[in-house]
Amino acid sequence: MQDLTLVMAQLDPLVGDIPGNADRAIETVREAHLEHGADVVVLPELFLTGYPPEDLLLRASMETRLRDARARMAAKVVKDVMVVVGYPGRREGQLYNMAGVLYNGEWIAEYAKQALPNYLVFDEQRYFSPGTQPLVVEHKGARLGILICEDVWKEEPVRQARDAGADILVTLNASPYHQNKPSERLRLLEERARDVALPIVYVNQIGGQDELVFDGGSCCVDAHGKLAVQAPHWDIWLRPVQFIQEQGKWVPREGEVDLDVSPEEDLYSALVTGLRDYVNKSGFQGVVLGLSGGIDSALSLAIAVDALGPQRVHAVMMPYHYTADISREDAAEQAKLLGVNYEVLPIAPMVESFMETLAASFAGTERDTTEENLQSRCRGVLLMALSNKKGLMVLTTGNKSEMAVGYATLYGDMVGGYNAIKDVYKTWVYRLASWRNTESLVIPQRVIDRPPSAELAPDQQDSDSLPDYDTLDAILVRYIEGDMSAEAIIAAGFSAEDVYRVVKLVDRCEYKRRQAPVGVRVTQRGFGRDRRYPIVNGWQPGD
Amino acid sequence: MQDLTLVMAQLDPLVGDIPGNADRAIETVREAHLEHGADVVVLPELFLTGYPPEDLLLRASMETRLRDARARMAAKVVKDVMVVVGYPGRREGQLYNMAGVLYNGEWIAEYAKQALPNYLVFDEQRYFSPGTQPLVVEHKGARLGILICEDVWKEEPVRQARDAGADILVTLNASPYHQNKPSERLRLLEERARDVALPIVYVNQIGGQDELVFDGGSCCVDAHGKLAVQAPHWDIWLRPVQFIQEQGKWVPREGEVDLDVSPEEDLYSALVTGLRDYVNKSGFQGVVLGLSGGIDSALSLAIAVDALGPQRVHAVMMPYHYTADISREDAAEQAKLLGVNYEVLPIAPMVESFMETLAASFAGTERDTTEENLQSRCRGVLLMALSNKKGLMVLTTGNKSEMAVGYATLYGDMVGGYNAIKDVYKTWVYRLASWRNTESLVIPQRVIDRPPSAELAPDQQDSDSLPDYDTLDAILVRYIEGDMSAEAIIAAGFSAEDVYRVVKLVDRCEYKRRQAPVGVRVTQRGFGRDRRYPIVNGWQPGD
Repeated sequence: MQDLTLVMAQLDPLVGDIPGNADRAIETVREAHLEHGADVVVLPELFLTGYPPEDLLLRASMETRLRDARARMAAKVVKDVMVVVGYPGRREGQLYNMAGVLYNGEWIAEYAKQALPNYLVFDEQRYFSPGTQPLVVEHKGARLGILICEDVWKEEPVRQARDAGADILVTLNASPYHQNKPSERLRLLEERARDVALPIVYVNQIGGQDELVFDGGSCCVDAHGKLAVQAPHWDIWLRPVQFIQEQGKWVPREGEVDLDVSPEEDLYSALVTGLRDYVNKSGFQGVVLGLSGGIDSALSLAIAVDALGPQRVHAVMMPYHYTADISREDAAEQAKLLGVNYEVLPIAPMVESFMETLAASFAGTERDTTEENLQSRCRGVLLMALSNKKGLMVLTTGNKSEMAVGYATLYGDMVGGYNAIKDVYKTWVYRLASWRNTESLVIPQRVIDRPPSAELAPDQQDSDSLPDYDTLDAILVRYIEGDMSAEAIIAAGFSAEDVYRVVKLVDRCEYKRRQAPVGVRVTQRGFGRDRRYPIVNGWQPGD
Repeated sequence: MQDLTLVMAQLDPLVGDIPGNADRAIETVREAHLEHGADVVVLPELFLTGYPPEDLLLRASMETRLRDARARMAAKVVKDVMVVVGYPGRREGQLYNMAGVLYNGEWIAEYAKQALPNYLVFDEQRYFSPGTQPLVVEHKGARLGILICEDVWKEEPVRQARDAGADILVTLNASPYHQNKPSERLRLLEERARDVALPIVYVNQIGGQDELVFDGGSCCVDAHGKLAVQAPHWDIWLRPVQFIQEQGKWVPREGEVDLDVSPEEDLYSALVTGLRDYVNKSGFQGVVLGLSGGIDSALSLAIAVDALGPQRVHAVMMPYHYTADISREDAAEQAKLLGVNYEVLPIAPMVESFMETLAASFAGTERDTTEENLQSRCRGVLLMALSNKKGLMVLTTGNKSEMAVGYATLYGDMVGGYNAIKDVYKTWVYRLASWRNTESLVIPQRVIDRPPSAELAPDQQDSDSLPDYDTLDAILVRYIEGDMSAEAIIAAGFSAEDVYRVVKLVDRCEYKRRQAPVGVRVTQRGFGRDRRYPIVNGWQPGD
């Protein structure tokens, strides 16, 4: 009886590092061959450049580098294994998003991606021309129909591959994560497999790249749409799929299936992965962050420690007159719990020095948010000085609800290289904090229980100037993710006053978000490449 | 003898303000009718939304608003005038970039743009489906072939309009400016007109929208490619083109042609327009900027005064120990020359207060750029405090050469809402300063003549750490605008040491640029939507 071992190589490329990614590919194939007896190894979409390569695709030497890398792979990859790997390729003047097939030292076939996403975070039509032809390659009697990512979200390329005689569909992906994406993806694969009555092997990358994070979850569904094998999410992994021929059809044997995790664990893993890869791939020694005694910085600290270990994390409490005693106590307590470097730098001398210098200019004016922002900016300057001196990246700690309505100070609490919770709504910040504490206590319970406050004025609470976070987040999800109009949100049961206030704040604060650090995107509409709004904007709320 | 008066309406829409833009259109048609006896009025591409509307196109109420606006136009626009105007329109489920034709209260025809640019700053395939059909409308016996912007850069849609029987090609545009674009555009129109032996009427918008600035220069070339009429650049304008019928062909009468301006005047006008529109359309009372005694802030101040008038400009000199006496003198002198508000706020008390607070953390470390950045950040905090208190936008003053190599301090001299010279290389900063002084003295000559210095350390000069600006800019233009590899630049005659240093700096500083304020784009590759590079990037220089 014929069989075929296909290994799904769920890897983490470094964008732009073409020689390094080729080395990773060569090493991966050897390992898949030695450990799993691979007949076929499938790597992710655009693996040789990493995804997304963005305007590196326009560089003059891109093609030379890829030619060299592919030549080296052809010379070094072990024999008798068929390798399918993604890279960009120019053919007859047009650039394509391709999958190449390497066998016994020869690149024997190429497929060009047909469906090029150009929405949300994707800009593929900026670079690529669409392919039009299917590709089926045969190995050990099995005919593999090659597809790339978006192709499998469309019916046409999938049916085309079936009609070209494929026994097994193999799709290379660089499919970024957002909440619930893993289950959406699986439902889609089940539907497509049933539609064409063929098994589908789906190979996705993992790791973080700027605002994107990839969750992996590479898998195989059988011709009835049943999940047969699945690699873990959030880790580099080689997972074999054993196909056997039964009555002329190639059927995947049931193998290991990574168990589902809770929504909280899944999201938390995304944040840890995004931060870890940003810091490590950028070569930072570690991170420094301001610890305020509030929930956002507390969760960010826990994520940082889980991503980098406590030795690489430096926390600073920067109290002022409005900092509550319990904030100081809780910050110190958490730093101790997690074993991170910790120092206390009061900001009063600097704030007062600025106010004295500005006294003449401000004469006759009322106290307003200027003074609040000044506190926040003195903290920002301190963090940046520590960052510069110690080579640590500043971790920004504002959540999505704040970034949406501009409840953050430019050059103040918004300073930093990366924000692990940038795309996490405040209500989810609480959920994640509580969930993480069930694993082990990392956040003092009082931080979770007390009412949130920016502590920039006496007795200030977030609810003084914003709707409660349950309401705020519910409005924001509808406005940002749902593109609903203010009127439609009001019709869904929210107060007109709240909705108009929130919607206007979101529109007005585009200028702030444009200067915010990048952070890991975990919703369907992150603030970044995902949501492209004008700053100068005459749009008024209304139907 | 038949004749036809076509009025080119070179307008400045407000992005997102659909009702307001419709009002502008109604008013414009009335004026064109009364003052010029218009038979046809042509307005720019996507005029009703403004260009580019970006993700506002995804909003649920976009279509309702456009329907209302077009209904109001149909009811209010004067009779007997044919109006051609751009707007997005959904037809059979697809969104198109359209030109609609309004006549005597009826929308009688629509054209859908065929060539959708998706490169550089353009993302039109993110939103629009391409049209496939030509549109020719007849008025007073003249058959007008309608095209939209990119269509006229391609041969196919132009020939299609001719084949459909057009006598005159009419193209609606939102064509952003870059240096030399006006002459490139004119050459293209000459070529296209000759190719199909038809006159072309080209209507472009003017004004600034975030990083884009539109120069206008609406014009008509005759069937031989000869410029017959041209509206001024950089101003709202209604300019008529008189067509007469001669031997069965429609020929434009020679009319007013706006004279060419120098490259310096053209670029300077772009910067003034970009800044003026950003500030006014955002509703700021004015701007505040740090005046250092150096050339960048001096030029920025001159631009700000030309854009907004001296009453709306507030300049602050923020000296420290390393600020030369001549810097103080020249800053004061320029503020006096231009009649702007001016104050001096020394930063020593704040800098020293930070250093004392950080003394324990910094114990045993060497002095490095941390201390330099600290000075710059104290200035940033002061400017932001003035901005917050007085409702003035901070004008950022870093040039493109600095932004390219990261010779700027995040949250220091990079603070601000807008940067008028963000896309101007240092060598051009000098050219513009000298040119502006020939009009009237606005920058003390010594500011132009002295060697550039950031004045963040004793006796510091820019040339200590960078190649001279002629060399630096020559390398940058090749690397950024030309996408040349380091090796190709070296082969063009530059030192390998300089080239590798510059190229590495450019690649490494993407994280800084990502948090920079927007500023007016005036080259073919501005740092913004134009050049999309990964921050985490393993690309190494080399062929």
